Amino acid sequence: MKHFKQVEIYIAEKETAKLTAFLEAIKYDEILTILERLDDERKAIVFECLDEYIAIKCFKVLPEKTRQTLIREMHHERAAKLLNSLPDDDLTSLVEGLPSRVVNELLKLLSDENRRTLLSLLGYPENSVGRLMTPHYVAVKENWSIQDAFTYIRYHGQNSETVNIIYVLDDNGVLIDDIRMQEFLFVEPTTKVNQIMDHRFLALSVNDDQVEAIKLFRKNNRFALPVIDANGIMLGIVTIDDVLRLAEAEDTEDIQKIGGSEALDEPYNTISFFSLIKKRAGWLIILFLGEMLTATAMGFFQDEISKAVVLALFIPLIISSGGNSGSQASSIIIRAMALGEVTFADWWRVMRREIFSGLILGAILGSVGFLRIFLWQQLHLFNYGIHWLLVSFTIFFALVGVVTWGTIAGSMLPIVLKKAGADPAASSAPFVATLVDVTGLIIYFSVAYVILKGTLL
Amino acid sequence: MKHFKQVEIYIAEKETAKLTAFLEAIKYDEILTILERLDDERKAIVFECLDEYIAIKCFKVLPEKTRQTLIREMHHERAAKLLNSLPDDDLTSLVEGLPSRVVNELLKLLSDENRRTLLSLLGYPENSVGRLMTPHYVAVKENWSIQDAFTYIRYHGQNSETVNIIYVLDDNGVLIDDIRMQEFLFVEPTTKVNQIMDHRFLALSVNDDQVEAIKLFRKNNRFALPVIDANGIMLGIVTIDDVLRLAEAEDTEDIQKIGGSEALDEPYNTISFFSLIKKRAGWLIILFLGEMLTATAMGFFQDEISKAVVLALFIPLIISSGGNSGSQASSIIIRAMALGEVTFADWWRVMRREIFSGLILGAILGSVGFLRIFLWQQLHLFNYGIHWLLVSFTIFFALVGVVTWGTIAGSMLPIVLKKAGADPAASSAPFVATLVDVTGLIIYFSVAYVILKGTLL
Repeated sequence: MKHFKQVEIYIAEKETAKLTAFLEAIKYDEILTILERLDDERKAIVFECLDEYIAIKCFKVLPEKTRQTLIREMHHERAAKLLNSLPDDDLTSLVEGLPSRVVNELLKLLSDENRRTLLSLLGYPENSVGRLMTPHYVAVKENWSIQDAFTYIRYHGQNSETVNIIYVLDDNGVLIDDIRMQEFLFVEPTTKVNQIMDHRFLALSVNDDQVEAIKLFRKNNRFALPVIDANGIMLGIVTIDDVLRLAEAEDTEDIQKIGGSEALDEPYNTISFFSLIKKRAGWLIILFLGEMLTATAMGFFQDEISKAVVLALFIPLIISSGGNSGSQASSIIIRAMALGEVTFADWWRVMRREIFSGLILGAILGSVGFLRIFLWQQLHLFNYGIHWLLVSFTIFFALVGVVTWGTIAGSMLPIVLKKAGADPAASSAPFVATLVDVTGLIIYFSVAYVILKGTLL
Repeated sequence: MKHFKQVEIYIAEKETAKLTAFLEAIKYDEILTILERLDDERKAIVFECLDEYIAIKCFKVLPEKTRQTLIREMHHERAAKLLNSLPDDDLTSLVEGLPSRVVNELLKLLSDENRRTLLSLLGYPENSVGRLMTPHYVAVKENWSIQDAFTYIRYHGQNSETVNIIYVLDDNGVLIDDIRMQEFLFVEPTTKVNQIMDHRFLALSVNDDQVEAIKLFRKNNRFALPVIDANGIMLGIVTIDDVLRLAEAEDTEDIQKIGGSEALDEPYNTISFFSLIKKRAGWLIILFLGEMLTATAMGFFQDEISKAVVLALFIPLIISSGGNSGSQASSIIIRAMALGEVTFADWWRVMRREIFSGLILGAILGSVGFLRIFLWQQLHLFNYGIHWLLVSFTIFFALVGVVTWGTIAGSMLPIVLKKAGADPAASSAPFVATLVDVTGLIIYFSVAYVILKGTLL
């Protein structure tokens, strides 16, 4: 915190020389923390003052949006150094988010090799495995000796992201095996590569969705997976550190959506106030418009309410119970779908299970609600009128109905959304709650009508 | 799906020979999918019939709870094979969840080496980095030549989880550097290790919380990080594949908590119906009891409601808007805290920002609400009475107040919970909504009292 304040002061006073000296004296971790707290404009100033080695290191771990802004704000010389330091996969995803006018500027800053790689990776569909891969891996031929392979690795493996796994390609570039470095070290140098091959390997397809890559990494203990095209030709590797970051970003999106806002796409600390409001207002307004139907529904029941004001007392309790059980169900199912545990094919199994869950949970809450009225009336804490017993039965059955309905709606909505090609996480807790609020009122007043007809109503 | 049905039939008919043959003919990926859909008892039957290589591979990627049940259900011989195949870190976390009576049984099944390692890892606090590490890494001495190092790796690196990074220890076992395998391959065999050292390395502390490990991996592009004790002595490494799985589990917990249930701790597909109900009922009941306060609050305003039934119409709309804005804010802050972007030190910065956000969002929703009444009245869609203009002002100001309050409460609650040592994710969307429902009613009726006193009230 103290360091942060000092940096703020130097920036405000435009003391770049002092800032440079100050930054040199503090640790990488602290610099990262400081950067996290600064807005993008001041981040760019700090970046200009950082030691090049540290600047590159920090740049590599910044979120993409921040990288994009920084690159646009910084002097070309430093921007070029930072860009060329990025792994190809990161460079690709940085560039794909920029307007084409800026991309053209940036291409000039890249080394020939990086420019070539970038242009080829940009050819794959967005969110495909192709955009995630790097061409920096080590591949050998099956008829080479281990010694040949080592000589090759010595010359070509320097930039490889990992040497844990050596890939074996045939003469057409088709992937035929992956071998652990340990196997290489363990045998005589004159052994042929094909003598230690087992022809068992796992690969990603270049056009697969990136989410598939996350799932495959979760199911297998690998640091990297090879990427092949439809003909089995090896195109690159995807490394697990990128998958960790991708999975984190996906989960962040899901959590923000479940909370009922758009995905922010930027860290909370650095997103501008205006963007923050924009991302949140959209859904809030939609939910508000939906929730207005409650006023319409209540309008229909206006007569009932004036006849039996006691019914109004329980409106928030009843509808929120439906909303809560719906939020639970939808969040659980959204996550299970993201992890691949539940798919559309499972809808009936899920539905059956959730109907029973809903009935049991509804009965539990209904009993608590029934008891509440019963006890308050008996202990003279509140007077629910002469028909209090009928009122408590109304509450019981309304809760069973509303909670069951909330649970079914909450669990089915993500599945339906997914089937319709939308993001299951859009069936956020507030969205389900709103849906159940409106229908919950109808359930409540219908139950009340049946039970209280002729007495209160 | 077809394969799954066939497997179900063989299990039901106890045709283990046919099942074995059937399983041999299908792919690893499909076997995993089948396993995911079976309950634990039938999973154990499939495991007994699987080819050993495939069984081990599947076992390694199963969730921990499932592993635990399987080990207890399977014959000892196969259980021993599976246990001994697990990396130490996985073995440790599997064992720590079992009752000690079972652990004693299991210890007998382990190889001498695995038993020793297990017992030592169990000495570290739960959820500490110590429980996550494996002692299978490659470490060399600084005065060795590269050739010496390779000879050593050849004999001792076979079980190492990674050979991407070679660690350099001094004579006391203190970690002094980490060197990429590529550097080793690149220099003459007679070069000394200390000639290629740069003394720059990054390490985890053995007693650190595992969440710190996730953060450090996110901030640095590494496949593995060394673990040291307070004296800098190297104890093991943590590999990124375990961190990916850990991060996934943490995010699952957060999402389930944000949805307002306890963390399930098991996949949705395999959790028993009873556990599922138990994990969900607890919070639902607590929320219900909290929400009962709305009935109490409504009781206080019973007179106002009977005088002005029109006020009741907007109750669900007003309180749900507060709940929705609160859910948004809490989910965003919970995630920002999980990623380390927001800490307690930031509370005032967050609060300031959220007050303004709340005011603006409240004003937006308030205007929509105002317009709704205005238009409906003018277009004769609904009659809000002669004081309709005052009613619409009531709605406007109530919405500004409730939304602002919801936003503040939602954003501060995770920060306060964290400070109190609780999990920020416990400030779930339904929890915040419930809190805001009760207070929202009070805000609404207070605003109504001020504006409508002398006319409607």
